[in-house]
Amino acid sequence: MSNTPDSAVRTWIEGHRAAFLDDLVEWLRIPSVSADPGRASDVRRSAEWLQAKLKETGFPAVEIWETAGAPAVFAEWPSGEPDAPTVLVYGHHDVQPAAREDGWHTEPFEPVVKDGRLYARGAADDKGQVFFHTLGVRAHLAATGRTAPAVNLKLLVEGEEESGSPNFPALVRAHADRLACDAVIVSDTGMWSADTPTVCTGMRGLTDCQIDLYGPDQDIHSGSFGGAVPNPAMEAARLAAALHDEQHRVTIPGFYDGIAELTDAERELFAELPFDEQQWLRTAHSHGTLGEAGYSTLERIWARPTAEVNGIGGGYQGPGGKTIVPSSAQLKLSFRLVAGQDAEVIERSLSAWVADRLPEGIRHEVTFWGATRPCLTPLDHPALQAVVRAMGKAFGQKIRFTREGGSGPAADLQDVLGAPVLFLGISVPSDGWHAPNEKVELDLLMKGVETAAHLWGELAETGRTGRD
Amino acid sequence: MSNTPDSAVRTWIEGHRAAFLDDLVEWLRIPSVSADPGRASDVRRSAEWLQAKLKETGFPAVEIWETAGAPAVFAEWPSGEPDAPTVLVYGHHDVQPAAREDGWHTEPFEPVVKDGRLYARGAADDKGQVFFHTLGVRAHLAATGRTAPAVNLKLLVEGEEESGSPNFPALVRAHADRLACDAVIVSDTGMWSADTPTVCTGMRGLTDCQIDLYGPDQDIHSGSFGGAVPNPAMEAARLAAALHDEQHRVTIPGFYDGIAELTDAERELFAELPFDEQQWLRTAHSHGTLGEAGYSTLERIWARPTAEVNGIGGGYQGPGGKTIVPSSAQLKLSFRLVAGQDAEVIERSLSAWVADRLPEGIRHEVTFWGATRPCLTPLDHPALQAVVRAMGKAFGQKIRFTREGGSGPAADLQDVLGAPVLFLGISVPSDGWHAPNEKVELDLLMKGVETAAHLWGELAETGRTGRD
Repeated sequence: MSNTPDSAVRTWIEGHRAAFLDDLVEWLRIPSVSADPGRASDVRRSAEWLQAKLKETGFPAVEIWETAGAPAVFAEWPSGEPDAPTVLVYGHHDVQPAAREDGWHTEPFEPVVKDGRLYARGAADDKGQVFFHTLGVRAHLAATGRTAPAVNLKLLVEGEEESGSPNFPALVRAHADRLACDAVIVSDTGMWSADTPTVCTGMRGLTDCQIDLYGPDQDIHSGSFGGAVPNPAMEAARLAAALHDEQHRVTIPGFYDGIAELTDAERELFAELPFDEQQWLRTAHSHGTLGEAGYSTLERIWARPTAEVNGIGGGYQGPGGKTIVPSSAQLKLSFRLVAGQDAEVIERSLSAWVADRLPEGIRHEVTFWGATRPCLTPLDHPALQAVVRAMGKAFGQKIRFTREGGSGPAADLQDVLGAPVLFLGISVPSDGWHAPNEKVELDLLMKGVETAAHLWGELAETGRTGRD
Repeated sequence: MSNTPDSAVRTWIEGHRAAFLDDLVEWLRIPSVSADPGRASDVRRSAEWLQAKLKETGFPAVEIWETAGAPAVFAEWPSGEPDAPTVLVYGHHDVQPAAREDGWHTEPFEPVVKDGRLYARGAADDKGQVFFHTLGVRAHLAATGRTAPAVNLKLLVEGEEESGSPNFPALVRAHADRLACDAVIVSDTGMWSADTPTVCTGMRGLTDCQIDLYGPDQDIHSGSFGGAVPNPAMEAARLAAALHDEQHRVTIPGFYDGIAELTDAERELFAELPFDEQQWLRTAHSHGTLGEAGYSTLERIWARPTAEVNGIGGGYQGPGGKTIVPSSAQLKLSFRLVAGQDAEVIERSLSAWVADRLPEGIRHEVTFWGATRPCLTPLDHPALQAVVRAMGKAFGQKIRFTREGGSGPAADLQDVLGAPVLFLGISVPSDGWHAPNEKVELDLLMKGVETAAHLWGELAETGRTGRD
């Protein structure tokens, strides 16, 4: 079936494009923001919507899996062939917070198509990239004349990825038997660009936290008391500033323990990509580069861990001035992790480091939101080569390799299920993940459908080969 | 007239207390927050209310004086005696911002009397302390049988003190002839405590500013871009943290230039006061002391300059986490100044220091809200001694000396009018200036009325003596 003409698959997909996009738009209207407790019912509605749609697609079994937080969706479609390998597709149905006033040109949960792009929160991260599998598997059946996929196909679509997947490891462990597979396909990453299709070989991990600092029991007069009592806004600033040394290396004790230095070969693979720093800065909406000394921009975002201030707040933030010593301040930090780092060790080290640095008179709390482990896939893995072939058929071009600076719970799947993790994503850097005006390129979204249509055949062959 | 029995004055005042408090409550209901552009009409209403009330008190001439910002109120009551000295009372009718959710037990602009205290924004700072002069001058007339005060009495009540009095120097210069006087009485400070009445001999100055930092044009994904571009929230934190060295001395170049070190005599005068650091910490609602190495707490708040973070904000501050590099951040800083420092020099130095420290890719703006100069009055000045005598009659106790850590535009009056500046305030540190649940002690407020009733006689004698 991997010999089905690529053009026939493409034609079939084009014929179903309009209805597919209508469905996606309906899903994107559901504001499934997992970080906001007030949106819990929307996250549940999103899971139920997906459950219904996957049944309509043809999955014989589709279940809502509860967690201590937001629900996940699990779907299963057995191949029917005894030798077929089992593949688990991973994605998420929750999205980042979004509000019109953050800089959106249109309502984030009112999808708009303009100039071949679909604008909405979650268009690329990750609803669009989950949803291309629904049309993909139907195209695979249509092109091969099968009534079930060439692989035992499983889907796990979680609802807390944008909140650091706090309950995902427990969910995977609890359902390890149902999730058992020969390979995991993560559909939650991107490509280099529309012109340079790539497959991703690893993601950074993440741990993030909130540090609350409390000083005076109420805001106090900066003239009457200022200069003589500790100021929690100042202490929040001091903590943030002390996270890096002058080389922009993270100062938390033990932070770099266990990291393997990049090899020359890996640095060369990065350097081969057509990287244009000015173009990259435009995509980053940024006006300068800054990071760890001794590393290129690509190395900094793909292969080096970071400490970032996601939010800081304390004291008066209204119009004009207010001469107070504020009573409290808050710091939201995230740390990107790379292979070799242990989030738990770093969390303990950070907690001790914070406690050590604060003066008498400042009470504090550190709350971690849950860690996501980093992961890396060997470049010579047969299943990775199958993904490369499927993409090659869809794109008609050489497929190159990247890594992903972002984080997903892929490593948990790898660890618990003992299966290699592969990445299939068609999003591009300009899609604005986590930013206002997130979008997906419709042509690339359809290439995603096409890749998925070829992938199950390619993996079925690999799987059988692997079992010989 | 300085020989009028103190008890007769007290009795007269007690008879008018209820109506006086009713009027004050009416004034406190007007939310005259000068820092909030949306409250401009309330600030104007406050000025007009005061104008009407001063006319009712008996001032023959009461005028609203316009500025580029909020209006001031000027009132004049000539003595009628050719030798009488001229005294100018200074206060302000604007108040700090206040909202119930900041921690107020009652609505900040719905005054409540409880346990001998009047709770409302502006109760102590400064409406209560301006308003005691209205009943004070009437008591002075009643006790002496005069139809006009023993001094040529002028009042100037500005409307932008809580915003750093940006237009006050220009106002004073423009009306220097109308404001000409032999002494200025500033009614915008406090005493040591209800048990230890004191007169203040100086105030710190102030300059405050907002620093806006701009990084990416929008919030961007901390996984895709973090660790490789500058983060304005981190840069705001770095600026704040760099304001002090490890000795908690301010690092802005030239910040300490021109300051006279405290003499041993001055340090002893401070040390004589019954200072209880644990009690002071309770008043400060704070749980530890922290400040410039080598100085006591009183020295730090009265005689040393400071740099304080009044507010910091940037990135995501909602519930949970959001893994972004924020597009902007904001820092609100205030600097308390002492005699010898020049606000303009420090503002220029700060601006250059900020520009020097920011990396490429961070655009910034520094906005100063307007400076207030520091001032000090010699301890042996005859007019200061008159204030001490008037307070002595009202309180029946030895009057000691303090300074004020807060700031007021007294130095501008001193400079432009060439008159000594004296301080008369009955507020105590627990009154909660700039804080939630601001209040004034009603017994002390009435002592303020009584002091004002004695003061014009005491100053008239001093003034005549001074002219011999």
